[in-house]
Amino acid sequence: MNQRRIISGFSNPTVKALRALREKKHRKAAGKFLAEGLRLLTDAREGGRLPETLVMAEGRDDHPLLAALEQAVLQAGGEVIETSPDILAKITGKDNPQAIAGVFDEFDTALASLDRHVAPIWLVAQALRDPGNLGTMLRTGDAVGAGGLILIDDCADPFSVEAVRASMGAIFTQRLAQARWEEFLPWLRAGQGQLVAASLREAVPYRGAPYRAPCFILVGNESRGLPDEYELACDLRVTMPMKGRADSLNAAVAGAVLAYEVLASLDG
Amino acid sequence: MNQRRIISGFSNPTVKALRALREKKHRKAAGKFLAEGLRLLTDAREGGRLPETLVMAEGRDDHPLLAALEQAVLQAGGEVIETSPDILAKITGKDNPQAIAGVFDEFDTALASLDRHVAPIWLVAQALRDPGNLGTMLRTGDAVGAGGLILIDDCADPFSVEAVRASMGAIFTQRLAQARWEEFLPWLRAGQGQLVAASLREAVPYRGAPYRAPCFILVGNESRGLPDEYELACDLRVTMPMKGRADSLNAAVAGAVLAYEVLASLDG
Repeated sequence: MNQRRIISGFSNPTVKALRALREKKHRKAAGKFLAEGLRLLTDAREGGRLPETLVMAEGRDDHPLLAALEQAVLQAGGEVIETSPDILAKITGKDNPQAIAGVFDEFDTALASLDRHVAPIWLVAQALRDPGNLGTMLRTGDAVGAGGLILIDDCADPFSVEAVRASMGAIFTQRLAQARWEEFLPWLRAGQGQLVAASLREAVPYRGAPYRAPCFILVGNESRGLPDEYELACDLRVTMPMKGRADSLNAAVAGAVLAYEVLASLDG
Repeated sequence: MNQRRIISGFSNPTVKALRALREKKHRKAAGKFLAEGLRLLTDAREGGRLPETLVMAEGRDDHPLLAALEQAVLQAGGEVIETSPDILAKITGKDNPQAIAGVFDEFDTALASLDRHVAPIWLVAQALRDPGNLGTMLRTGDAVGAGGLILIDDCADPFSVEAVRASMGAIFTQRLAQARWEEFLPWLRAGQGQLVAASLREAVPYRGAPYRAPCFILVGNESRGLPDEYELACDLRVTMPMKGRADSLNAAVAGAVLAYEVLASLDG
């Protein structure tokens, strides 16, 4: 069995390689990503995913879940590194870091590997640029019992530290797919599935609209919204009340309000 | 009438003073804050608020709304500064800045100045730490026709560049108050008002709960939620379905789902 390795230097090559995972190009080259925090890593473990490398800060509090995690990583042939809180903060880029972080293999995000029948709701985001919004949508998906999040066109990287953090562990429980619109639409139409978007054009009120499972809730880019063509391809366009000066909501908020409405409709 | 002033140096004292407004202590000392973008500044103008200083980047596109804004600022005795896109980016701290920014006086955020009867819904956030969440709540408040946002205890600064940006202009349309819990609760109880929180303890389903206007929707801190004592002081505790592994939503998302439910209930 491997043992704990202690790293005390900022210029250690392992530290450099871990830090590099904060950048997308290095994540893609390595096929790996970082996740922080005992709760998140425990969620991952319970979901069947172990980090290949576990990094722990010296002086952390003991915790039975941490001991269990360390043992599981070592038993699976992974590596456990102990380092200073400063170096861990450098790796995760957070001033006040969690006491542990893990390195995971990126998941397969091929659309073809999704089984749409495992859940009544799916979230779909188009050109979503903000990693915080992306992580928040994963978290909302977990809460409403969605199957996962499908990312259309050029979205933020779901494996970025910010997205993983905002997902609060849902990165490990929600399925994730990435596709161009030209791939997504034929895939959707090859089976059951209702595509729904919030829209300001000819649309029905979102309360009491005829939602059907599996229901795919499509949310557009933060500043531009959905392209007309995408909206028109939807089976159902719904409007939400907009009582103020602005005519829009934050993308993750709009998706969540709609997802809770769909959940109530399908359960009711 | 004042004329446009051209500033071309990074070390110009005005540039330094404007940049300093990105930091809370300097904002508080000056009693001023920054807002960017033509749309946002136009919303402000239509809401009766003009920047005392308007900063425009050279080489920006002409726009009738920008011309109207510039004229209004000059007529009101304000200052118009023209500078390079690089300097404007330095001021706002954004890589890809909007072509204009304005400096506004911070608003009065005394609880005593709120008239609770102007709107059926109010959002209340306790110890909300993320300026993006704070701005998103302002934006949601605008959408549901809320009166404003009441910030309880130590929240992020609503006048930070991040919060103003995320509010998408709602900083100028929503009322804003800041208070300690010990001030808020007596103020609330001195008049009509139902205090509602999402809760996991003894609570009723959030769909169809007996909401009453003016309804104050209370959302807690991102990681700790609401203190027990605050939850117990609520008139109504409601639960939202949590189908996944996690038992919580992003604070701004939870507030929005609840706010749309309250809106439907009061309108219905």
